[in-house]
Amino acid sequence: MRTMFYVSDRTAITAETIGHSLLAQFEGTTEYREVTIPYVDSLEKAAVAAERINAAGRADGERPLVFSTLAEPESRDLIIRSDALVLDLFHVFLEPLQRALGHSPLIKTTHSHRISNLSSYESRIGAIDFSLQHDDGARVRDYDKAEIIMVGVSRSGKTPTCLYLALQFGIRAANYPITEEDIHSGKLPEPLRGHRARLHGLTIDAKRLASIREERRPGSRYASIEQCRIEVRQVESLYRSHDIPYVNTTNMSVEEIATRVVQSRGLERHAV
Amino acid sequence: MRTMFYVSDRTAITAETIGHSLLAQFEGTTEYREVTIPYVDSLEKAAVAAERINAAGRADGERPLVFSTLAEPESRDLIIRSDALVLDLFHVFLEPLQRALGHSPLIKTTHSHRISNLSSYESRIGAIDFSLQHDDGARVRDYDKAEIIMVGVSRSGKTPTCLYLALQFGIRAANYPITEEDIHSGKLPEPLRGHRARLHGLTIDAKRLASIREERRPGSRYASIEQCRIEVRQVESLYRSHDIPYVNTTNMSVEEIATRVVQSRGLERHAV
Repeated sequence: MRTMFYVSDRTAITAETIGHSLLAQFEGTTEYREVTIPYVDSLEKAAVAAERINAAGRADGERPLVFSTLAEPESRDLIIRSDALVLDLFHVFLEPLQRALGHSPLIKTTHSHRISNLSSYESRIGAIDFSLQHDDGARVRDYDKAEIIMVGVSRSGKTPTCLYLALQFGIRAANYPITEEDIHSGKLPEPLRGHRARLHGLTIDAKRLASIREERRPGSRYASIEQCRIEVRQVESLYRSHDIPYVNTTNMSVEEIATRVVQSRGLERHAV
Repeated sequence: MRTMFYVSDRTAITAETIGHSLLAQFEGTTEYREVTIPYVDSLEKAAVAAERINAAGRADGERPLVFSTLAEPESRDLIIRSDALVLDLFHVFLEPLQRALGHSPLIKTTHSHRISNLSSYESRIGAIDFSLQHDDGARVRDYDKAEIIMVGVSRSGKTPTCLYLALQFGIRAANYPITEEDIHSGKLPEPLRGHRARLHGLTIDAKRLASIREERRPGSRYASIEQCRIEVRQVESLYRSHDIPYVNTTNMSVEEIATRVVQSRGLERHAV
C-alpha cells in the first residue's frame, strides 16, 4: 500500500484532478490510499505537510507520491525535498510559461484567483437559481430564457447535467421529463414546441435505467426492465423524428455528459 | 492577443483546470482568448486540432499556448509538434510516474476512467437527490441522514455549496435558512437542535450580501444595507453562542467554500 498526497495552497481540487487523470493510467496495477492537504499557505504548514509525507513513507515502506500545486517557491521546495516523488504543476510548467509570456508569475495564486472569479461567481449563482426553478418541467413559460433544455425519461440524468452546467459553466439549463403519454402520442410535448433549437435529449441503456429506478422504487412497474426498454426505444424514436440531438449517458460521468452537450450545441461558457 | 487552447481526448476539464491555475499567475499581464477542443480521440482529430492551433498562431501573430491532456502518444506528438508552446500533463508526468510505480500506463484513459467511476456516479446522484429534497429547510425530519447541514441567512451561499458538495464529493448536504425571527430569539431553530455536530454556518460581508439581494428584489428592505448588516451581525453572534463553526464566503468560489467545509468538519468524500 502506497500513499498519494494532494497538496495545495488552495482547495487542492486542481491537484486532485491532475492526480486522478494520471493515476487512471495505472488503474488496477497499484493499491493506494489518498490524503488531501489543502490550504498549505505558509512555510509552517508546508513543513508540517512534508513531515506527514515522510511519516507515511516510513509507515508504508513505500515512497509516497505527491501531486501538488504550490505557487510559493519556498513552500514548494520544502515539499519537493520530502522523501517522495513530487509532481508539482508550478514547478514544471511555470518557467516555460514565464518565458513564453515574457512576464514573471504573481506568486499569490489565491488572491488573484478569487478576485478574477467574482463575475464568474455571479453567473454561476444565477444559473443555479435558474436550474432549480426550471427543474423537472417547472415554469415552462420561461423557456425562452433557457440556453438549453434537457429532455429525457425519468432518471436518465437530466437534473445532474443541468446542475453541472450551471455550477461549472454558468449556463442556464432547464429540464423537462418525457412521460409515457408523451412518448405514446409521438408528438413533442406542448411546452417544448417552438424551442426545438434549444432541446437536447438524453438516453440511457434500459438495463442501467432499470437498476437506477429500482433503487428509487423497488419492484415497481416503473423500474421493470420491460418498461425501461419500451420507454428508451420510444424516446429515442421521438428524438430522431423531431431531429433532437441526443447522447447516451450509460457510461458517462456528469462532467462528460455536460461537456458533450456544450460542444454539441455550441453553448457559450459564462464561468471559468 | 494570444490564443490559449485546451486539448483533450476527453472532456478537457483537467486541461482547463490546469490552464486556469497557471494563467492566474500571470493575470493582468496578458490578453488572450480561450478555445477548448475536447474529445480528440483519433489521429485524424489530433491533426485537425494541430492545424487549428497553427492557424490561430498565424492569425494572432503570437505563438499560441496549449494545455493538453492526451494519453495516446502519437496524438500527443502531433500536438506537441504544432507551432505553439505545448504543456502536456502526460508528456511531463507519465514517465516519472511509470518509473515510480513500476508499471506501464494503460494509454486508454477514457475507458478505464469511465468504468472506475460507476459507484462514484451513484453516490453523486444520490447526494444530488438528497440536496434537492433538503434545500431551504425542507424535510427537516430527515436531518439525521444528512452528513452536513449548512445554515445561514438568505443568499449567503447555502444552496450552491450543498449542490457542489453533492456533485463533486457525493456528500449528502441539507440546508436551512436562518430567518429574522430565529435571529431575534437568539435560539437555534427547533429543527436544528440535536444536530449541532452536523451544522456549519455561512456568513458574508453585509455589502456583498446587499448587492446579491438587490439583484433578486431591487429596492426592498430585504436588500437594504441596514437590514443586511443587522442579519449578518446577529447570525454570527448566533453561531458563536452555539459553537457552530462558520466561514465567510465573501471572496470565495463555491469550490473554496465546499472544500473548507469538508476540511473543517472532516467529512468523508464518496466520489472522486
